[in-house]
Order: sequence, then structure tokens, then C-alpha cells
Amino acid sequence: MSIQDYLESGNARLDSQLLFTAEIDRMTEVLRRTLLINGSRRENDAEHSWHIAVMAMLFAEYAREPVDVGRAVQMCVVHDLVEIEADDTFAYDVQGNLDKAEREKEAADRLFGRLPEDQGKMIRDLWEEFDAMETADARYAACMDRLQPFLHNTLTEGHTWGNGQVSRAAVEKRMAVIRDFMPEVYRWIMANIEQAVAKGWLAP
Amino acid sequence: MSIQDYLESGNARLDSQLLFTAEIDRMTEVLRRTLLINGSRRENDAEHSWHIAVMAMLFAEYAREPVDVGRAVQMCVVHDLVEIEADDTFAYDVQGNLDKAEREKEAADRLFGRLPEDQGKMIRDLWEEFDAMETADARYAACMDRLQPFLHNTLTEGHTWGNGQVSRAAVEKRMAVIRDFMPEVYRWIMANIEQAVAKGWLAP
Repeated sequence: MSIQDYLESGNARLDSQLLFTAEIDRMTEVLRRTLLINGSRRENDAEHSWHIAVMAMLFAEYAREPVDVGRAVQMCVVHDLVEIEADDTFAYDVQGNLDKAEREKEAADRLFGRLPEDQGKMIRDLWEEFDAMETADARYAACMDRLQPFLHNTLTEGHTWGNGQVSRAAVEKRMAVIRDFMPEVYRWIMANIEQAVAKGWLAP
Repeated sequence: MSIQDYLESGNARLDSQLLFTAEIDRMTEVLRRTLLINGSRRENDAEHSWHIAVMAMLFAEYAREPVDVGRAVQMCVVHDLVEIEADDTFAYDVQGNLDKAEREKEAADRLFGRLPEDQGKMIRDLWEEFDAMETADARYAACMDRLQPFLHNTLTEGHTWGNGQVSRAAVEKRMAVIRDFMPEVYRWIMANIEQAVAKGWLAP
């Protein structure tokens, strides 16, 4: 019972696409720090990627610049694929983030290298665009990537912040792209940060 | 620890969008019959929706008609949302499929009714288009929705087919949209059906 049981199609390109599809099912094994909103367990990368993809269909009206929603949704579904190889790096883990870029670049070489060259490049370009946060689509997708776990935290007693182990300043830094790109949404973020500090979920 | 802890923003439209986002996290609780490829457990609707959304970025070249990939990906991420309210109906459950349409229509009224009207309509329209399988984008998304669990079945000893409880004819009927819309992919499907029958996973 595994990917070894794959029956070849006789079309090498189709095989690499189907095998890549099977491979990325491992996104369900990459656990994030964030809890599901029902509090039952940590969410995984597949669930998170799906969740922010739906969000990207809903929040474009708050973006400072016009966004291509169809592109942003695609960016959302592929933005964490490299974590299959590089694992999730907690946003507030200073040490882990030092070599994150290098680890993820190598992971991208391995993972996207399994696709036909044109498609590997297409997904890699989207991922790099997301990571660089320079285009409107990428900044918007990055906002979704930060708004979703923030929303989860507000509904799970600040779980990811670890009862005051993460500082308000660190969260504000992480949310800066929302502050700059979605100011209306950021007002709600700020109110929640105030509340989280008041409740002791977040260090002042 | 729940959606009741939501802090209002002062903008009713933004609140309904954020609350809808929180609500749909329940897609992680809707279990499908399909196993993850690692065989560890059943996959959930959030994982499945994410998986077919990535697939929709990869297989358009096999489609008989041009596909708008950005639209198809959006269709994939929302195509099962109603199951939060209506639950998953197993594709090969004859009884359950009799009243599926009615149950899902009521579920759509409740669920999409929580969004601002324009956005509820936008997602509902996409879902209805998907379900009708008349446009190229919808037929393509429907192919992904069938190809993914089929691939999982081929790699998990035909798990969903229940050791021969599902017939070859039922699977061929379910895969008909792939036969008609993606004939190159259907050749691989057929070879796997032959193998599944030979191994006793599927009734002849």
C-alpha cells in the first residue's frame, strides 16, 4: 500500500504528473502549530492551504491594489508545498527561520524537479513570487497566509502564542503585510492584539 | 475556545466574511471514504479539496476543450463546501445519492446565506456550475474530483471499493466524465480498472 504500487501509463509526462500528485499527499503529514478552530488537534499544511485559498476568494475588496483572484488562489494552494521536504518552520521561531530560505530552496529543487520541466518552473515561479511579496497577488496571498492562523488564534485562546511566549511586537511584525496592504482588516487585527495582551495570551 | 469568542470588527460585511472563514474550518471534520495514500486514515474534505485544486493546475493539457485554470481551481476549493451541512455522500452509495441533491440545496441555502449576498451568490454559482458539469471548467474540475480518489484507490489496495463490494461498471460510470473529457488519462484509468478486477479489489 504505497506509491510503489503505481501502474505506469506509457506516457512519461502523465506518469510524472500523477506521481507528483501522489507525492504531495504528504502535505497532510506536515503539522502546523495552529490548532483547528474546534481545538481538537493541530492543522496540517493541506488543510491550511485549502483554507487560505477559499479566503483569497473573499477578501480582495480590502486590498490596496487590484488582485487577480484566480492567480492568488493558485499561489495559496502551492505556497507551502516545499514543506513536504523542508518541514514547517514556525513563524515565531527565530533560530529556525535563519536557514529557512536555504532549506526551502533545496526542497524546491527536489520537489518541483519531479514535474515536467515547464510545470515545475510554473509552480516554482508562483512559490518564489509568493515568498518575495513584491507583486499585488503575492502580497494578497501573504495576507491570507497570516490572517488565517491569526483568526484561529483568536478563537483558540491564542494557542500558537503559547500563553504569552510570543510578544506583541513579533505578531505585529508578522502582520505588517496586512497593515500595509489591507488596512481595514488590520484594524480588526489590532483590536484582537489588544484583547490577546489583556488576556495574557500574548506578551505585552 | 470557539467561534463564539469572535471579536466584532464594527464592519458587518467583514464580520460575515471572517465568520464564514471560521465556519468552513469544519471541512476538516467531514470525512471521506478515501484513505490518505500513506494509508493512515481517511482523508477529510479540506484535504481532498486542496489536493484536486493543485491537480487542476497540472492536467489541463489533457482536456478536450480549453480550460480556465484559475476558475477551475476556485471551483475545486469550493465544490464540497455544502458537505459541512449535508455531509459527504459516498459516490457508490445508491440510497444516499437519491436525496443528495435536495439535501445539498438546503445546505447551500444555509451555508452561503451567511456570506454577503454577492459573495454567497458567487460561490453558489461556482458550485452549481461544478455540479451541472456542462461547462469545460466544470467538466475539468469534475475530472479532478474523480481522478484523485481513483489514484488514491490504486495506491491503497482499492480501499474505497471495499474488497470487491463496488462493481467495475459503477466505477466506469463514475469515471465517464474522464472518458469523455480526458481520453488520454482514461487509458490509464482503464488499465488500473483491469488490474483492480484482477486483484479482487473491484467486482468484475
